[in-house]
Amino acid sequence: MEMKQHEIMSDREYRLSELTLPEDLKKLTPLQCRKLAKEIRSLMVRVISHNGGHLASNLGTVELTLALHRIFDSPQDKFIWDVGHQCYTHKLLTGRLGEFSTIRMQGGISGFPKPEESPHDACISGHSSTSISTACGIAEAMRLSGDPHHAIAVIGDGALTGGLAYEGLNNGGRKKLRNLIVILNDNNMSISGNVGAVSGYLRSIRDSEDYVRRKQKLEEKLLTNPQVGMPVVKVLKKSKDSFKRMVLQQGTMFEQLGFVYLGPVDGHNQQEIEEVLRVAKRYDAPVFIHVKTVKGKGYLPAEKNPSQFHGVSKFDIMTGNPEVSGSDCYSAEFGKALAALAREDDRICAVTAAMKYGTGLQYFQAECPDRFYDVGIAEQHAVTFAAGLASMGKIPVFAVYSTFLQRSYDQLLHDVAIGGLHVVLGIDRAGLVGEDGETHQGLFDVPMLMTVPGTVIYSPACYEELRLCLRRAVLEDTGLAAVRYPRGGEQGMHFPMDELNTDCTYTDSGSRDVLLVTYGRVYAALYDAHGTCEKSGYRTSLLKLTRIFPLEERVVEIARGYRNVIFFEESCSGVSALFGSLLAQSGFAGRYIPVALHGFVKQGSVPALLDQAELSAHAVCRYVYTYGSKT
Amino acid sequence: MEMKQHEIMSDREYRLSELTLPEDLKKLTPLQCRKLAKEIRSLMVRVISHNGGHLASNLGTVELTLALHRIFDSPQDKFIWDVGHQCYTHKLLTGRLGEFSTIRMQGGISGFPKPEESPHDACISGHSSTSISTACGIAEAMRLSGDPHHAIAVIGDGALTGGLAYEGLNNGGRKKLRNLIVILNDNNMSISGNVGAVSGYLRSIRDSEDYVRRKQKLEEKLLTNPQVGMPVVKVLKKSKDSFKRMVLQQGTMFEQLGFVYLGPVDGHNQQEIEEVLRVAKRYDAPVFIHVKTVKGKGYLPAEKNPSQFHGVSKFDIMTGNPEVSGSDCYSAEFGKALAALAREDDRICAVTAAMKYGTGLQYFQAECPDRFYDVGIAEQHAVTFAAGLASMGKIPVFAVYSTFLQRSYDQLLHDVAIGGLHVVLGIDRAGLVGEDGETHQGLFDVPMLMTVPGTVIYSPACYEELRLCLRRAVLEDTGLAAVRYPRGGEQGMHFPMDELNTDCTYTDSGSRDVLLVTYGRVYAALYDAHGTCEKSGYRTSLLKLTRIFPLEERVVEIARGYRNVIFFEESCSGVSALFGSLLAQSGFAGRYIPVALHGFVKQGSVPALLDQAELSAHAVCRYVYTYGSKT
Repeated sequence: MEMKQHEIMSDREYRLSELTLPEDLKKLTPLQCRKLAKEIRSLMVRVISHNGGHLASNLGTVELTLALHRIFDSPQDKFIWDVGHQCYTHKLLTGRLGEFSTIRMQGGISGFPKPEESPHDACISGHSSTSISTACGIAEAMRLSGDPHHAIAVIGDGALTGGLAYEGLNNGGRKKLRNLIVILNDNNMSISGNVGAVSGYLRSIRDSEDYVRRKQKLEEKLLTNPQVGMPVVKVLKKSKDSFKRMVLQQGTMFEQLGFVYLGPVDGHNQQEIEEVLRVAKRYDAPVFIHVKTVKGKGYLPAEKNPSQFHGVSKFDIMTGNPEVSGSDCYSAEFGKALAALAREDDRICAVTAAMKYGTGLQYFQAECPDRFYDVGIAEQHAVTFAAGLASMGKIPVFAVYSTFLQRSYDQLLHDVAIGGLHVVLGIDRAGLVGEDGETHQGLFDVPMLMTVPGTVIYSPACYEELRLCLRRAVLEDTGLAAVRYPRGGEQGMHFPMDELNTDCTYTDSGSRDVLLVTYGRVYAALYDAHGTCEKSGYRTSLLKLTRIFPLEERVVEIARGYRNVIFFEESCSGVSALFGSLLAQSGFAGRYIPVALHGFVKQGSVPALLDQAELSAHAVCRYVYTYGSKT
Repeated sequence: MEMKQHEIMSDREYRLSELTLPEDLKKLTPLQCRKLAKEIRSLMVRVISHNGGHLASNLGTVELTLALHRIFDSPQDKFIWDVGHQCYTHKLLTGRLGEFSTIRMQGGISGFPKPEESPHDACISGHSSTSISTACGIAEAMRLSGDPHHAIAVIGDGALTGGLAYEGLNNGGRKKLRNLIVILNDNNMSISGNVGAVSGYLRSIRDSEDYVRRKQKLEEKLLTNPQVGMPVVKVLKKSKDSFKRMVLQQGTMFEQLGFVYLGPVDGHNQQEIEEVLRVAKRYDAPVFIHVKTVKGKGYLPAEKNPSQFHGVSKFDIMTGNPEVSGSDCYSAEFGKALAALAREDDRICAVTAAMKYGTGLQYFQAECPDRFYDVGIAEQHAVTFAAGLASMGKIPVFAVYSTFLQRSYDQLLHDVAIGGLHVVLGIDRAGLVGEDGETHQGLFDVPMLMTVPGTVIYSPACYEELRLCLRRAVLEDTGLAAVRYPRGGEQGMHFPMDELNTDCTYTDSGSRDVLLVTYGRVYAALYDAHGTCEKSGYRTSLLKLTRIFPLEERVVEIARGYRNVIFFEESCSGVSALFGSLLAQSGFAGRYIPVALHGFVKQGSVPALLDQAELSAHAVCRYVYTYGSKT
């Protein structure tokens, strides 16, 4: 487990491809590591500029990751990357250099840690604030099995605003888990500018040079102690009083939660990080290490504007400019429409959980800064806070990605729905999202919300319907009302715009052979398929649902007259199952064919994933040709 | 808003029934308040001994509640009771003395705050750790509307272990909400003995007499200051340095989160509480007040054993002994069965979120203390921690009430299911729970878990099936496996015990007229109804599902041959909707009649609620007579 000092590589520059990784890292000199860090950064910028991905956070953790692999032994020691989007260096150092150019592409490696990809990836991650709890579980399993290795959570200051992180700290500190290390990767910047009291508190520690100096003195003292080699905790116990006077005069919150606090250290000074990791490794207690990093480090456009480079699409390396503009999308349309409504009605408030730009709420904030709330990565709080606003007559709108809304399930039920409070959800990234893969697909919001009594759910098929639905949800509905819309923009829509509404649209072909049912963007595919099939002599009727829950009685009335009802649903089965059950209750004697998603969906481009899920125009035609009859 | 000092009631003892409440409270002398507190305690013990309810927490908050109503003006000032089960005094003081004897009974008042009951109840509560976020929303709405009142959250030390409470503190401290007050009701005791680092930290504050003394000095200084009447914050700003030296030498975690910290104060010394509330009211910043109380205060059996008196059924007032024994129940059977399995296999670990006794895990802890984890009221952490254990080859079993599992939805999807980790859920209080009402009924676990890909769900119909299912879930299944069972014990079961299994049981009557389908304890009702109907000439077949998800193909094969399929589900619609959809896909041409719960269910006895939901033997017969035909 100890670094073997004698095995040193020869003193030339090595490229990643020449090394056996991660083992050889321990044999490199500091200068060799610096060269490697440079190579890693330039490789990441090159690949991400082409594939898209999380750039700024990965540029900020190069030295930290190198240091972790030099001081610890992966995969026996477990690194748990919170949110997971800062794991690119780790992937490069653990056997995935060759596949790195396929990152986030269909069939390629994931942009997040994935145990099926490598034994060096300890767990799935993609959502925020889970790492400390996972590390607690791993550390406890190690203890039970007598395994002397460490579980090391690496968590950003943004993720620290999530309640789950606090639950993890509270339990990790309490359990006195001697092999638990939590590393705070503090870049003073969650996704769109950090918020919350904890953030201010961290800044106060970062800025306290006095505190840093005292800490550094401690570390020097520890490292130059003649008793080096004796477990550090014993050293500390011996000098407890002076130690306390020196360091704990102002105990940090993390010490109050039971951790040994070390830091802050400069996260781009690799030797400094390695020193603190070596100290942490020797403690017989849970350790919290505060590392200061710069998001986007080493790539000027990203350093200057880390928010813009948090999650990016393809961009131009020289300028940092994205190849496509981000304003033609559902998020922007939602943000603008909500801002317009808020101008009319001053009860309307907007809430985001650290996704202001992602959800288009910058438009709202510009109009009504006083009614705009970014609560940090805290989806539970966002909903309960909204419930509080609603109980006083405000109309809160929580804009959130489908996948992250999952974290608010109990708050939706308990804090909003039981009391019948009027809270509106703008559910962004609903449906397939593409390259981010399993952890980010928006497949569960529909079946989840259908279990919440009294909820109304809309799934518009285009921008104009989004505006109609949002207005109805905000100003006309009561209780919990949700409008869900996909990532990206309107595409390939050829259906007539005069049939837009917030309920449903039925297009009767005259034949009772096939009824095609759907909602949301898949309607464009159905409409195209309908045309194609007609040319081949298959007549299909269309039913577009806009309010997808609760279902109107008349949609079942319409459907029960058909011989074949085919329901295409871009979601894990929710409305299509309910529709089937209602048909069975209606005395329907035809054939019902639901086509929905089942299970998690891996990364790939959205069109490819839609086709794979049989939700493309092509797939719809296939169903019609299989089940329908020529007229 | 200020207390009108001149309106003093005459100096005799008043009973609750003689006062106009809450207004008259402000006119009472301290001695009169003490008498009232005594009356309130004795009334609560009398009613709860008869109706059951939360005793210990209510006995602990009598003085605090009186003080709140004397210093603040409800309902303009909003009191938000975390978890809500300590609101009985508040109910007695706000117009519900007359109905108090109906508390928790069908048609009576709720055991939790409920806005529909009184304008003095600011919001629904029943789940833990929501109060600070709700209060943030209310305080912010007040700010937007220029309303000068206060939003006051009262939260226990147990509830403070929930991540949502931390999200609320982080946002409340940051927003500099000048009308937000958080009162920590610290009884050093969450439901079954407090756990976690925060708990230890609070104890260290409580025990620091020095700290208390310094605080008291501050308060004296504030209250005797010649500048009294000037907003306190100005006083403080003027004397900032000495104030800091005096009080903030060791900043508390709450101060680090942006709150002014006051306390700890004795929660049974009403004058002391009132003083600190008066100080808090004047601050132009969010205030955190630390109140020390004794759970069960004033009723000796409860003071001695507060855990036992957390939530109680009827008990004998003199001895404190419960009228019925608590060991004949599903929880105990589960705990014993799991302990037995753990003796066989040392990979098995048990996790609870502050519900050791409620879930029967005391039996497990007695056998395997080293593999038993109480993580506090932190259901999110419980699941992610379990995922960490599972990733290292352990078999974690999380025993949790159905309603509280809702808080782990994202962790089940993201941390367990995507990675296919083997985690077992023991879901207690599944289905109708009775007197605790809407916030506690276990109606959503089935539809919620059905959305989690790869999940297996069992719903045993008796103890023996519970044991069979648990063994299969723990030792044979992979991925997420859940066993759900009701509150209470086996009752009125007359069905043959030789047909027990973990899949399904089909009893063919020979007739294809009516098939009755169900799962869980409702099977006993179906079996009885089947016998009753037979006597009246109606032949019904029975299908008992034990593994309710995923459904076996053969159950649909069986059902599609019937003219009438009636599915009785003690849950919000989940399996019955899926069953209907599968029937529609199978070419079924009969009539499908699902009978499930829709919406939230108010309090009442379980048998009454089952009957009301048409899930009793009587109701089943009615369906058979309506849809079936005599042979």
